[in-house]
Amino acid sequence: MKQIASIQNPFIKSLVLLQEKAKNRKQSGTFLIEGKREISLALKGGYTIESVLFYPEICSQTEAEKTAPNTPLVEINAAVFQKLAYRDTTEGILAVAQTKPMQLQDLQLSKNPLILIAEAPEKPGNIGALLRTADAANLDAVIIANPKSDLYSPNIVRSSVGCLFTNQIATGSTAEIIAFLKDQNINFYCATLQNATAYHTQDYTTPTALVVGTEATGLTQDWRDAANQNIIIPMQGEIDSMNVSVAAAILIFEAKRQRGF
Amino acid sequence: MKQIASIQNPFIKSLVLLQEKAKNRKQSGTFLIEGKREISLALKGGYTIESVLFYPEICSQTEAEKTAPNTPLVEINAAVFQKLAYRDTTEGILAVAQTKPMQLQDLQLSKNPLILIAEAPEKPGNIGALLRTADAANLDAVIIANPKSDLYSPNIVRSSVGCLFTNQIATGSTAEIIAFLKDQNINFYCATLQNATAYHTQDYTTPTALVVGTEATGLTQDWRDAANQNIIIPMQGEIDSMNVSVAAAILIFEAKRQRGF
Repeated sequence: MKQIASIQNPFIKSLVLLQEKAKNRKQSGTFLIEGKREISLALKGGYTIESVLFYPEICSQTEAEKTAPNTPLVEINAAVFQKLAYRDTTEGILAVAQTKPMQLQDLQLSKNPLILIAEAPEKPGNIGALLRTADAANLDAVIIANPKSDLYSPNIVRSSVGCLFTNQIATGSTAEIIAFLKDQNINFYCATLQNATAYHTQDYTTPTALVVGTEATGLTQDWRDAANQNIIIPMQGEIDSMNVSVAAAILIFEAKRQRGF
Repeated sequence: MKQIASIQNPFIKSLVLLQEKAKNRKQSGTFLIEGKREISLALKGGYTIESVLFYPEICSQTEAEKTAPNTPLVEINAAVFQKLAYRDTTEGILAVAQTKPMQLQDLQLSKNPLILIAEAPEKPGNIGALLRTADAANLDAVIIANPKSDLYSPNIVRSSVGCLFTNQIATGSTAEIIAFLKDQNINFYCATLQNATAYHTQDYTTPTALVVGTEATGLTQDWRDAANQNIIIPMQGEIDSMNVSVAAAILIFEAKRQRGF
């Protein structure tokens, strides 16, 4: 088994770059996962793990082997672990995993799909919360339109608490996604702040996609023009500024309620 | 008009302590608010503003006067402003405001109130999101049971984007709040993860409080024992870990839907 005790080691340096730069993740087609549960969920979600790094004072070799069977192990020391670990509370284990292409045509949808689409979500924390809600609702898929950030960035991996691996996810341009929805006969409902019908008056029991935009600027005109229906969550407060993951959850669970869970 | 150009000034030092320490906010009964809209909302929400500090390169004296009329103004320089400003993007204006006691008996409820109760919420960002949702739903009140953090801490003030001032808020112990609800004949529904009825099967059209616990440990036994009904959001995913502000929003908007908004 390999042992690495220097942060100057070229392999470790390449992993630091994976944490820091989307470019390096894209070029290598790999990213880092921290934590036992996250690694297990990635395996369950069909991700290929190339190697597992463990820091034996927190995570034993046996535990590391159990988390990712038949995977090359690398024992690291405290300095290397601290250099790579992104989370505050941590479990002494990291994995190098291969990214997935996240293409629309790879999505496997049920006969009556329920899909969440988020256009250009800004904050990693929001993307993580969207993925958590999508997991809880067992959605068919989450589609990110015109993504602004690499979904394999460490803060998205972390804030999704593993839901990056439990959801089917695709990315694409707004035009590609609209064409995909039309081709698949999926009705899509765009959450907007004006010229829209109250969300709870619509029927989401047939193939449905719910589309949300950014908190700052909402959905682009392309989405609003193409929508089967623009919908609004009636707001009655002073500020009427709802977190995007909160708005998405309200829409998703109204659809779930109509479908009888 | 007073002008302060040194971060060593005793008044400025006292304001830095207000940003940093709950103890100082409690002792003085004051806290800091940043931003024009936030200051306007605080005034509208009945908060007393003791003084306004402005940095003229970003916010003119005229704007400062317009934001908080008839309030003592203090002109500050870049160094002082940077020392006090908590937000990244900022507007060159800060106010020293008096805290409110946030007592249960001060709440003014409608005849058929809808209330959100959160027990010991942990993260400032979650409290901010709860307050934003409560504002959008125009709830009668938000009650925090056994608060773990001072609600006037700068990160809660910030993450609530002013909704700290637009909502009626009270704090109290779990026992005090349960007694209050019983006294006011308000049914309360506790969100739990087991031994509970699906939330959408219940009727929230009479006086209702929705109670949520922490993401880590849920609600304490006292709440679950006293509830008119324990409720659950059916989850069907791999992880079933929902953000607390997301769960609260799903419950609140189901109640709003039943009430016809």
